[in-house]
Amino acid sequence: MAKVKKQPRPKAETPKGFRDYFGAEVTQRGDMLRQIAEVYHLYGFDALESSAVETVEALGKFLPDVDRPNEGVFAWQEADEAARGDWMALRYDLTAPLARVYAQYRNDLPTPYRRYAMGPVWRNEKPGPGRYRQFYQCDADTVGTASMAADAEICAMLSDTLEAVGIPRGDYVVRVNNRKVLNGVMEAAGLLDPANPTAFEAERGIVLRAIDKLDRLGLDGVRALLGEGRKDDSGDFTKGAGLGDEQAAIVMGFMQAKRDTGSATVARLRELVGGSTIGGQGVDELEQIADLLGAGGYGPDRIDIDPSVVRGLGYYTGPVYEAELTFDIFDEKGRKRQFGSVSGGGRYDDLVKRFTGQEVPATGISIGVDRLLAALREKGRIGAAPSGPVVVTVMDRDRMGDYQAMVAELRNAGIRAEVYLGNPKNFGNQLKYADRRSSPVAVIEGGSEKEAGVVQIKDLILGAEMAKNATLEEWKDRPSQVEVPRGDLVATVRQMLDRQGR
Amino acid sequence: MAKVKKQPRPKAETPKGFRDYFGAEVTQRGDMLRQIAEVYHLYGFDALESSAVETVEALGKFLPDVDRPNEGVFAWQEADEAARGDWMALRYDLTAPLARVYAQYRNDLPTPYRRYAMGPVWRNEKPGPGRYRQFYQCDADTVGTASMAADAEICAMLSDTLEAVGIPRGDYVVRVNNRKVLNGVMEAAGLLDPANPTAFEAERGIVLRAIDKLDRLGLDGVRALLGEGRKDDSGDFTKGAGLGDEQAAIVMGFMQAKRDTGSATVARLRELVGGSTIGGQGVDELEQIADLLGAGGYGPDRIDIDPSVVRGLGYYTGPVYEAELTFDIFDEKGRKRQFGSVSGGGRYDDLVKRFTGQEVPATGISIGVDRLLAALREKGRIGAAPSGPVVVTVMDRDRMGDYQAMVAELRNAGIRAEVYLGNPKNFGNQLKYADRRSSPVAVIEGGSEKEAGVVQIKDLILGAEMAKNATLEEWKDRPSQVEVPRGDLVATVRQMLDRQGR
Repeated sequence: MAKVKKQPRPKAETPKGFRDYFGAEVTQRGDMLRQIAEVYHLYGFDALESSAVETVEALGKFLPDVDRPNEGVFAWQEADEAARGDWMALRYDLTAPLARVYAQYRNDLPTPYRRYAMGPVWRNEKPGPGRYRQFYQCDADTVGTASMAADAEICAMLSDTLEAVGIPRGDYVVRVNNRKVLNGVMEAAGLLDPANPTAFEAERGIVLRAIDKLDRLGLDGVRALLGEGRKDDSGDFTKGAGLGDEQAAIVMGFMQAKRDTGSATVARLRELVGGSTIGGQGVDELEQIADLLGAGGYGPDRIDIDPSVVRGLGYYTGPVYEAELTFDIFDEKGRKRQFGSVSGGGRYDDLVKRFTGQEVPATGISIGVDRLLAALREKGRIGAAPSGPVVVTVMDRDRMGDYQAMVAELRNAGIRAEVYLGNPKNFGNQLKYADRRSSPVAVIEGGSEKEAGVVQIKDLILGAEMAKNATLEEWKDRPSQVEVPRGDLVATVRQMLDRQGR
Repeated sequence: MAKVKKQPRPKAETPKGFRDYFGAEVTQRGDMLRQIAEVYHLYGFDALESSAVETVEALGKFLPDVDRPNEGVFAWQEADEAARGDWMALRYDLTAPLARVYAQYRNDLPTPYRRYAMGPVWRNEKPGPGRYRQFYQCDADTVGTASMAADAEICAMLSDTLEAVGIPRGDYVVRVNNRKVLNGVMEAAGLLDPANPTAFEAERGIVLRAIDKLDRLGLDGVRALLGEGRKDDSGDFTKGAGLGDEQAAIVMGFMQAKRDTGSATVARLRELVGGSTIGGQGVDELEQIADLLGAGGYGPDRIDIDPSVVRGLGYYTGPVYEAELTFDIFDEKGRKRQFGSVSGGGRYDDLVKRFTGQEVPATGISIGVDRLLAALREKGRIGAAPSGPVVVTVMDRDRMGDYQAMVAELRNAGIRAEVYLGNPKNFGNQLKYADRRSSPVAVIEGGSEKEAGVVQIKDLILGAEMAKNATLEEWKDRPSQVEVPRGDLVATVRQMLDRQGR
């Protein structure tokens, strides 16, 4: 017999930067996606699931903060005879595939096309703590209309969605701004020349990034970045935009333009953009959105005009939005911090044009489902009670049929249940297993019980509680284990679960 | 100003072999996955979502019918400085990742570990009609127990699952066989020598493939493949296993060993495997499964012992199962055909061993969700009624706030609704849009309606019906459009939807 060559054993490891999700992590996310989809559906949005794989050509270079093509995505070349196959890649977001799908099917799709999509996306980035290379996005977009009513609708829907998944009003705010207003401010500050749009591009980039850091750096920090630059706590120096005092004052004024009502903020912005045509357009758009939301009853407690919202992505062309959770959480050292942004989006009128040459206006949002789940978990709003199955233990290996019949009865009554399928020899192992499964109840039927026509039913939650706190008297008064006729199995388990509150 | 170089426009195309799913295709699959997960959960199975990406090392060479590593998967090399990064790949099924996950987390997971997983898998194969390179699988497996009770449980759960998603009893059957019985038959036929297990490997392969084709070739066709070989209708010749008459008779006897009851089939199989130790083990295992299922009330109308089930995958080591839909469907030429297999699985005791060196028994099934959906659609059991939103048309562009208020009221009553967001100039386009959206109802409020405090509500389903069939008298008797006070909007739409049966 030929000897088979020994290969080294493969390592059992999740690839670097990826992770596996277990049990409640999976089902809680599924529940949240379902709740979100229900709101989207109610608003008339249709589901779309595009393939996870796209051609690199179709994905284009829209990945934020990345200059080289293919950088940031997982890509490979299709094998063909001449080794000249197309380059393929995993999608890095759900917007680029939407642009491809809309361009491809535009004659068959309704226009405007409201669609939602949810699923994993992949980024070929350096992994870090809490930073994974596969994560979920959940998007809603309206393609094919320039109407500000579409933007207002998206903001209202985002607000409704956050409340539907369990964030009460007051614990979040959707903030709205407009890129055109920003451009108008740039024009007013002499940083944008409509006749020569590429001039001062570097300076504008620095200004945008500075505004985006307002939360972290404060007004003084941003002011420094608008001027000569800023040295951070570690001594590292970040070069500034080199703006003069007057220029910087306009930008700073813009960031502080927020007033108590949307219409007051809009009025202040109109002063700031001065004679800029694009700026005036942006202010008009913000005003329309504010009016529509006001008519719909969405006040600044839910959706607010806020000039400090920038959004990183280069492709936004008009309104931009961002949803922020405003409640405090406390880290392990008791320090208060805020949870920050869980969703963002805006209008991107140029994305479909890449394919068709025609401008197709579009607007939409993306919800960071994993961040939202983390926030709800930290607030204790999901994931409290364990939800393991009732475990029917095996006292007599030859009567497996009897035990199977018990779990079948329990399941038929809608109770999650299973037979212990490991080696039944050591009964302690069976209870350890039930513990690891977070089982609420164990069922025991040995030979003598079988003969007497009874079963033992053990309340594992009460048992654990009693083991910690109870006196001997209490043990006797509140037995965590009861013996009942076999026929009462289901009813007794049901009572026990009800008493446990599940 | 520098001229920007013109790049050719990217093609808007789904990559070859992939597809996009729209609307009901997405939500119906989501609903089915949810129904399946509910049954799995009731049986005590826990959700697992592993990363879509694995190292090629961890995936191994288990892809069926493929000899070279990396063949059949989408793989790429991680970039690092020395260009010597790990090879990564998209998972081709959900079983290989389970083996990796169990090996990795075995000290933290309960044993036995019951888990379910659902999601897309990817195969780098030549695309063909109806054959895609990304498709959904939905698996349930029990890892860490050799007990036949685990296999019986999986079969019972598969039966319950099919009924839960809408396949009534009698329209499906779960068929069970055992690889060890097959090996026993091979031994009895002189095709397997326990002392030299690699001898006759090629012949056994031909025999297995021949048995697997029984459905298509019939007994005579299989008999030919066991002997010299077989010429098909196109004249192509397939080489046979070269078995003598006596040898072939044993294999043919095995395929026809099915009797009316599980126990009769088991008895016949015991005769056929003769003195083979492994064959005797296999028959014992089949008997245990049959007994357990019988005790649970799962008769041969649901789960049946059937020696003709082989299953292609090389890694099965004991029981194998397959769920088949037994109802007839008719193709476009009116020819009757059967839908065939929608799920399969079995015991694979060696898969985790690759990582740990220790044998870890495991058993499970995979449901082909897309095939199952196709079957239910062909039977007309899902996807009949259109489910578009109520469309509120726009008669006056300046009163968008009024229209938004209407859809908000409708949504608050749980009615799917949207405002028309395209260019409202041409009212005909708005109704065409409503038609493309499969809208059940349209709402109209022009200037005169607004003044009079009324709205027009149009039953689009009834309207379409009437346009096809109705006489003038009927048009008058059953107006598809009604005028009601603005305050009655929601109630009237609700009534109309109820009358339409949605």
